Amino acid sequence: MLRLTPPENKRFIQADNFNIIYGGGEANVAVSLANYGLDASFVTRLPDNPIGDSALNELRRYGVNTEFIKRGGDRLGIYFCENGASQRPSNVIYDRAHSAIAETKPGEFNWGKIFNGADWYHVTGITPALSDNMAEVTIESVKEAKKQGLKVSCDLNYRAKLWSRDKAEKVMAEVMEYVDVCIANEEDAEMIFKIKSGSDIDSGELNIDGYREVADQLMERFDLELVGSHLRKSYNASVNGWLVVLYDGNEFVQSEEYEVHIVDRVGGGDSFAGGLIYSRLTGKSLQESAEFGAAASSLKQSIPGDFNHMSLEEVESLAKGSGSGRVKR
Amino acid sequence: MLRLTPPENKRFIQADNFNIIYGGGEANVAVSLANYGLDASFVTRLPDNPIGDSALNELRRYGVNTEFIKRGGDRLGIYFCENGASQRPSNVIYDRAHSAIAETKPGEFNWGKIFNGADWYHVTGITPALSDNMAEVTIESVKEAKKQGLKVSCDLNYRAKLWSRDKAEKVMAEVMEYVDVCIANEEDAEMIFKIKSGSDIDSGELNIDGYREVADQLMERFDLELVGSHLRKSYNASVNGWLVVLYDGNEFVQSEEYEVHIVDRVGGGDSFAGGLIYSRLTGKSLQESAEFGAAASSLKQSIPGDFNHMSLEEVESLAKGSGSGRVKR
Amino acid sequence: MLRLTPPENKRFIQADNFNIIYGGGEANVAVSLANYGLDASFVTRLPDNPIGDSALNELRRYGVNTEFIKRGGDRLGIYFCENGASQRPSNVIYDRAHSAIAETKPGEFNWGKIFNGADWYHVTGITPALSDNMAEVTIESVKEAKKQGLKVSCDLNYRAKLWSRDKAEKVMAEVMEYVDVCIANEEDAEMIFKIKSGSDIDSGELNIDGYREVADQLMERFDLELVGSHLRKSYNASVNGWLVVLYDGNEFVQSEEYEVHIVDRVGGGDSFAGGLIYSRLTGKSLQESAEFGAAASSLKQSIPGDFNHMSLEEVESLAKGSGSGRVKR
Amino acid sequence: MLRLTPPENKRFIQADNFNIIYGGGEANVAVSLANYGLDASFVTRLPDNPIGDSALNELRRYGVNTEFIKRGGDRLGIYFCENGASQRPSNVIYDRAHSAIAETKPGEFNWGKIFNGADWYHVTGITPALSDNMAEVTIESVKEAKKQGLKVSCDLNYRAKLWSRDKAEKVMAEVMEYVDVCIANEEDAEMIFKIKSGSDIDSGELNIDGYREVADQLMERFDLELVGSHLRKSYNASVNGWLVVLYDGNEFVQSEEYEVHIVDRVGGGDSFAGGLIYSRLTGKSLQESAEFGAAASSLKQSIPGDFNHMSLEEVESLAKGSGSGRVKR
Amino acid sequence: MLRLTPPENKRFIQADNFNIIYGGGEANVAVSLANYGLDASFVTRLPDNPIGDSALNELRRYGVNTEFIKRGGDRLGIYFCENGASQRPSNVIYDRAHSAIAETKPGEFNWGKIFNGADWYHVTGITPALSDNMAEVTIESVKEAKKQGLKVSCDLNYRAKLWSRDKAEKVMAEVMEYVDVCIANEEDAEMIFKIKSGSDIDSGELNIDGYREVADQLMERFDLELVGSHLRKSYNASVNGWLVVLYDGNEFVQSEEYEVHIVDRVGGGDSFAGGLIYSRLTGKSLQESAEFGAAASSLKQSIPGDFNHMSLEEVESLAKGSGSGRVKR
Amino acid sequence: MLRLTPPENKRFIQADNFNIIYGGGEANVAVSLANYGLDASFVTRLPDNPIGDSALNELRRYGVNTEFIKRGGDRLGIYFCENGASQRPSNVIYDRAHSAIAETKPGEFNWGKIFNGADWYHVTGITPALSDNMAEVTIESVKEAKKQGLKVSCDLNYRAKLWSRDKAEKVMAEVMEYVDVCIANEEDAEMIFKIKSGSDIDSGELNIDGYREVADQLMERFDLELVGSHLRKSYNASVNGWLVVLYDGNEFVQSEEYEVHIVDRVGGGDSFAGGLIYSRLTGKSLQESAEFGAAASSLKQSIPGDFNHMSLEEVESLAKGSGSGRVKR
Repeated sequence: MLRLTPPENKRFIQADNFNIIYGGGEANVAVSLANYGLDASFVTRLPDNPIGDSALNELRRYGVNTEFIKRGGDRLGIYFCENGASQRPSNVIYDRAHSAIAETKPGEFNWGKIFNGADWYHVTGITPALSDNMAEVTIESVKEAKKQGLKVSCDLNYRAKLWSRDKAEKVMAEVMEYVDVCIANEEDAEMIFKIKSGSDIDSGELNIDGYREVADQLMERFDLELVGSHLRKSYNASVNGWLVVLYDGNEFVQSEEYEVHIVDRVGGGDSFAGGLIYSRLTGKSLQESAEFGAAASSLKQSIPGDFNHMSLEEVESLAKGSGSGRVKR
Repeated sequence: MLRLTPPENKRFIQADNFNIIYGGGEANVAVSLANYGLDASFVTRLPDNPIGDSALNELRRYGVNTEFIKRGGDRLGIYFCENGASQRPSNVIYDRAHSAIAETKPGEFNWGKIFNGADWYHVTGITPALSDNMAEVTIESVKEAKKQGLKVSCDLNYRAKLWSRDKAEKVMAEVMEYVDVCIANEEDAEMIFKIKSGSDIDSGELNIDGYREVADQLMERFDLELVGSHLRKSYNASVNGWLVVLYDGNEFVQSEEYEVHIVDRVGGGDSFAGGLIYSRLTGKSLQESAEFGAAASSLKQSIPGDFNHMSLEEVESLAKGSGSGRVKR
Repeated sequence: MLRLTPPENKRFIQADNFNIIYGGGEANVAVSLANYGLDASFVTRLPDNPIGDSALNELRRYGVNTEFIKRGGDRLGIYFCENGASQRPSNVIYDRAHSAIAETKPGEFNWGKIFNGADWYHVTGITPALSDNMAEVTIESVKEAKKQGLKVSCDLNYRAKLWSRDKAEKVMAEVMEYVDVCIANEEDAEMIFKIKSGSDIDSGELNIDGYREVADQLMERFDLELVGSHLRKSYNASVNGWLVVLYDGNEFVQSEEYEVHIVDRVGGGDSFAGGLIYSRLTGKSLQESAEFGAAASSLKQSIPGDFNHMSLEEVESLAKGSGSGRVKR
Repeated sequence: MLRLTPPENKRFIQADNFNIIYGGGEANVAVSLANYGLDASFVTRLPDNPIGDSALNELRRYGVNTEFIKRGGDRLGIYFCENGASQRPSNVIYDRAHSAIAETKPGEFNWGKIFNGADWYHVTGITPALSDNMAEVTIESVKEAKKQGLKVSCDLNYRAKLWSRDKAEKVMAEVMEYVDVCIANEEDAEMIFKIKSGSDIDSGELNIDGYREVADQLMERFDLELVGSHLRKSYNASVNGWLVVLYDGNEFVQSEEYEVHIVDRVGGGDSFAGGLIYSRLTGKSLQESAEFGAAASSLKQSIPGDFNHMSLEEVESLAKGSGSGRVKR
Repeated sequence: MLRLTPPENKRFIQADNFNIIYGGGEANVAVSLANYGLDASFVTRLPDNPIGDSALNELRRYGVNTEFIKRGGDRLGIYFCENGASQRPSNVIYDRAHSAIAETKPGEFNWGKIFNGADWYHVTGITPALSDNMAEVTIESVKEAKKQGLKVSCDLNYRAKLWSRDKAEKVMAEVMEYVDVCIANEEDAEMIFKIKSGSDIDSGELNIDGYREVADQLMERFDLELVGSHLRKSYNASVNGWLVVLYDGNEFVQSEEYEVHIVDRVGGGDSFAGGLIYSRLTGKSLQESAEFGAAASSLKQSIPGDFNHMSLEEVESLAKGSGSGRVKR
Repeated sequence: MLRLTPPENKRFIQADNFNIIYGGGEANVAVSLANYGLDASFVTRLPDNPIGDSALNELRRYGVNTEFIKRGGDRLGIYFCENGASQRPSNVIYDRAHSAIAETKPGEFNWGKIFNGADWYHVTGITPALSDNMAEVTIESVKEAKKQGLKVSCDLNYRAKLWSRDKAEKVMAEVMEYVDVCIANEEDAEMIFKIKSGSDIDSGELNIDGYREVADQLMERFDLELVGSHLRKSYNASVNGWLVVLYDGNEFVQSEEYEVHIVDRVGGGDSFAGGLIYSRLTGKSLQESAEFGAAASSLKQSIPGDFNHMSLEEVESLAKGSGSGRVKR
């Protein structure tokens, strides 16, 4: 996906050039994992033109395996994103209808081959929302992943502009049958599965107890081994509180809370997903996983663009407590 | 007026290019009102060259009616502005002598025609300070506005570099005879009309009670229906507290206080004036007017340039309490 | 020295251009002093090519006397610096081996002539760390300075990447025999002279009492008239607490504490050194010296680049209490 | 339409920001005419979001009447354009399917009202090619224009990526029944109407006699009062020869030939159309019309972006022979 | 003087930032001479603010002595300059009325002290045109220069926007009484002294014979030792022919002709003046002087900004025939 | 290697930022081949820091296999390059001593494994010039390549700043024993092997006959199957004539000559090498090889940076005659 963002803090109507950023949920996770030293492949469909080439190259540049990316279709999905500041929220305009990936047909990806030798498959709830075809393709993929013994993680990521709550519930309920690790914030849980807690997402306050109820209900309804979320305390668009919670049906843990001075908040959730997958694949404890995920995702927000350009050592260093931001020299 | 600002946070002596920003008190108010959907005209005089064209175009671009703008004179007023940060204040250098507007002569504008069909006229105390001629032109304009039944608002905006306190008092006292709504902070009131309160403007503290006394004295001395001000708590050049107070001779109201992370503070006061005029023209209550004005002006400071590129819906949304800065998607 | 920094908050691996910044410890101090109106000379060796010309010009541009700069050698030392933000620290990569200055030989500078008529000589602990030759040259220089009756100041500035603790102690102990004013933070004192206090530099907390012990021990071990340091409270890479302490063997003073919103932290310590030297040369009291040094160095951090482009009046204004960051107009 | 172009001469795959350019055939003509002082309206449909606002504002900024622009639909058409140089041609990638204008339905525009009081209507062959609906809308528009007595001009502008030759011929033949002034280069004439001449468009050679045959055949087949074209001698992507030919069925004229050093060639043809319409509306002779059109269009190519930001006086000055490019001061 | 120029080849009305360029006739000459290793001082008056500081620093940066620059007055003269290309000429808008230098009064500069020890004084015809005071100051300066035995050179540089032909003749005739070396193109000679030749300056053709007549008449009318000019063959705004002619009353020489691909033509004439002064001061022959001046001024036009950043060796290398533009490595 | 270049046409001493370009002889060739669809590996040694990461990523981004790149050493070689224009040549400052590659030791690369399955090995004469070690490593590599049956090509590329003529001859003579295809211009041949022809490289004239003699002598002295060169006619730094000659001991062919309008000339020779290797590997005739190489290398010079971002189709299209630079749409 191509993000076009006016430089500095300009609004759209002031801009006369855009910064070019390639990214998107699963791609961002793949870059995180490649940065931590794992073999990560990204699967999508990109138009066979220089814009598609540029998107593919950007992944390849950061070490993601692109051999399963199909080329074809008419266009790359675009969204325009205006960076907020202070009391002014960021603003997103989607222009992703008719994208190459949305027009992919079931059966087009050879999931058997793609998953061969892999350990983990991650997908977000944005992908099946793109089109009816993609809903089918997504279900196809999680089924096959499960069959081949991969762990499956899903970040629910409800997007009201893409599909209705009813449709989302129908599709995601089927996807969830194959999911082991579910990332879902309160809004996702409520909008898709009508699971409620007492937190008011616009208030700028955190509701850790509320989230515990949500996690409990998700765990009950689906056969999951782990539920998690980042929680954002939105003081304003420049400074946020940020922490991570995880629940394995048994223990409920909460990470260090960071005061994040935001450079670019897009990709914050994906960098948490990346950190969590890495933690689970490398045998970290639940508490360590929360700390690693929280550190990864607060660091991401200090970097322009979607991708979390942080190394394993840098994330570990913060996760283990060195957050004073001193120069390394 | 043309503002030239070094990029990022550079000081003048480091810069090797300038960003181009067109704006100025009344122009900024006109753009605010056009953004809220009202018909707004801006009246000035611009040189008949491409720099004047660019200034005019910038207003036209954002929907302001420019048909009453006269073309002629030698130059557009310029000021150089260096954006402060942290403990370093912003710094302004004026180069606006001999501007086309300052050399306008009384009688040059056909106020009768300009005001025909209009509801409101807004002027700032900077305009009559530009030259003796402009002092006369300003008085000419408020008289005619009053005669045709327009509401007249004035933002006192005392500028010590433009005129003496005595001259300011003489001219502004005459202007105030025709004013209905007066925007004045404590410093303006003291410097022009010797009206004092106990607030120390450099201390970084707010003095709401002090301002109440100022408002009271302005109300007593002139025949006003409303007095208002924004109050700025200057922690430093990067973060400010910000709220708005209004007094109608009867009720004294105070808005929500915002912690503003400043992108560009120029135009903050004008965006409050724009919000206040809109509120009064559309029948908002005193409290609602304060909230709308405070929301508008805190949002402005998150945007580079002079103009407040916020829609009615965006300001209303913050005024009604959604200030958490979450992405809209 | 040439600093190359990606624009905005980009990481190295994202950048596709660098901003060019010339600077370095003693050069930064020289620019501060020239800005305050003193005659300041900078002594170094620069390659005889346009990169060396540009470095020399940058000093000349800001009023530093460059007549004692030797030309020759192969290259200018470079370091790449990535600006941190939020929880992400700034990151520095050195590429300064084999620089023109590091390959200078003892006897190459005519210190007798350089110090003729001068009042003060400032050097940092980075310079002797560059090479064995430079260690000799530095000792040569402080001896001659002392002989000609100049005050000598030294900022210990320990750099672990440049030399071992043992070698640093050996060389710096000899340098310190000629030093009158020593700037040293706790880390420098511990790493070089094994002088310890109870402060944990990564904790984000200040330890003023701890520093007092350090200052005491430095004063005892060497024949100094003044010891000082800035103390940084690293909340994160975007916001720091900042204050200055001074000890003359008798009185221990502490400046106002500033909450610094960081634009560029490089050169913060050097701007304190510059402020301190100015204060001592112009007869300020110990408390005034601390305030001037703290104001100078908190202001520096609001400016991109190494140099502290603040005038005497601007620093005095903050040192005397006007830190609200209001626009000057 | 939104054009996104990498800065300098970068290829797409190197770029990391785009310059934003709004334009498109008829819009470019409208800006030309507004620049020459005529009342020009642009009719289109733009999405009701800030990208649509920005496109509308850009027209309003340059004085085009935008009152007939409809708001609605999903997206603004985009094309990515890479500027060529030397032997490397410019490269265009279209992403304009499903644009707001392409999805307009017949009957949506009130042509009766739009044409009321107008003298001239200009359309290009790109517009009916966008969709079946737009083919109908275009025919609807030319019929009504003719009925109300406007002169109708059409620039054939065949785009092979948008429709087949057969479909183009069917639709354009119907459009041509209502056209008075036809702009068509040899390629357009051949691809749409199978009208051939001997010129080889890739050879870098001009074929004025060949074009005379083309013009003759167009004049015979349709009921036209004027046929014209620019002829480009493509030495390479940096330097072109450029001239204009016109034929009124009687006289065949040819303008001065310019050696154009290309800054941005997009919009060159539209600036010729704008110059021609202006010439016809103001009663210029055939030879004068050719000179004015050639001057306008060679000047355009010295300006970045689609629009021809040249005043009437500037074009006249070149058309009358002052092409030495001396500074005006 | 401050030049503000839109980046790339943008027109004013498209620009949204300006590049900052400090320069002006005599300043440009001073930088040329400093680059060639001579001691050059620049005399002017600059406002005492950071804009004035920046202008002064820019000179100091490139090695010009600034000790005779007076500080004071209201503003620095500004001009806006749009870079032309192809058939579009560059365009200049002056905003230099009321500048610090224009408001200088006779007697303000201590010419006796300024000229003490100097060999050459250069002035342009722009300086006396700025105001009546500056006309007097200029005459004052050339008288004193002559009295102290300096060579005096003057570049007539007629600017129609600054003064009438009659006034120019009156003042410049008096200036010329003290001038030894006169730089004047045909237009200057005709506009000021009614000296005509047959060359048509807009035609893009050179007229070397015509210039010989002009030089002859200047030599006859005034007591000069040398007359010279560059001749520009303006094919268009991107490519020019360029050569230099000199006449010493005896011999008339003409340099190599260069085909100049223009990056920035401003300062081309001043770089010729700089080259000529250097040549005369170092005893070059008449032919060598022409070659050096032509090489210097064609090289200047390949550099952005006013100043000719070329070393003595680089100019000599071209003057002696190495113009193939091969990389030096 | 890291190239740092001031933007636009600025000289070093004017610049205040650099564009970042990664490249270098063999790397540029590898990117060309990857662009044409071949499997290309690049072998080097890069420091294990983010600057090294960025260089590696840039290759990976454009599809070059980087698995054989070793990580280690202190620094990446840097050169500063100023783009010339018109009569001003480009200027290069090297800072590549002590680079990671120069300090590689013989035996460090496992050439047996690297060449396994490969068809062609390309090296330039810059590589063995970097250090004595690299001379040994280069000889080691060509021996092994030959042993495994790869074709070996070498671009002599003499760099006087890196080694003496005697040393170059000694090393290169040994390298040439294993070379099949030699790229050498006249200067290389003369400086290294004392092989002369009558062409004057500074004259701006081509000497095709002279080159034929050079090719003949190279062929005689070494056991080569092909000798080739590009010939550059340097009118000036903005426009060059450009063609390619090849000699196989039997036939001497010469390509089309292009008039190149230079955007960035660095990498021009490497793009010819890339084109030639591709041609030989895919069985093109001698004449076709010359045309493909000439087209590739003239296109490169229209692109900023070192790499030749042209596809196979684009090069073929020009090689087969379509050089008119028309927009593709």
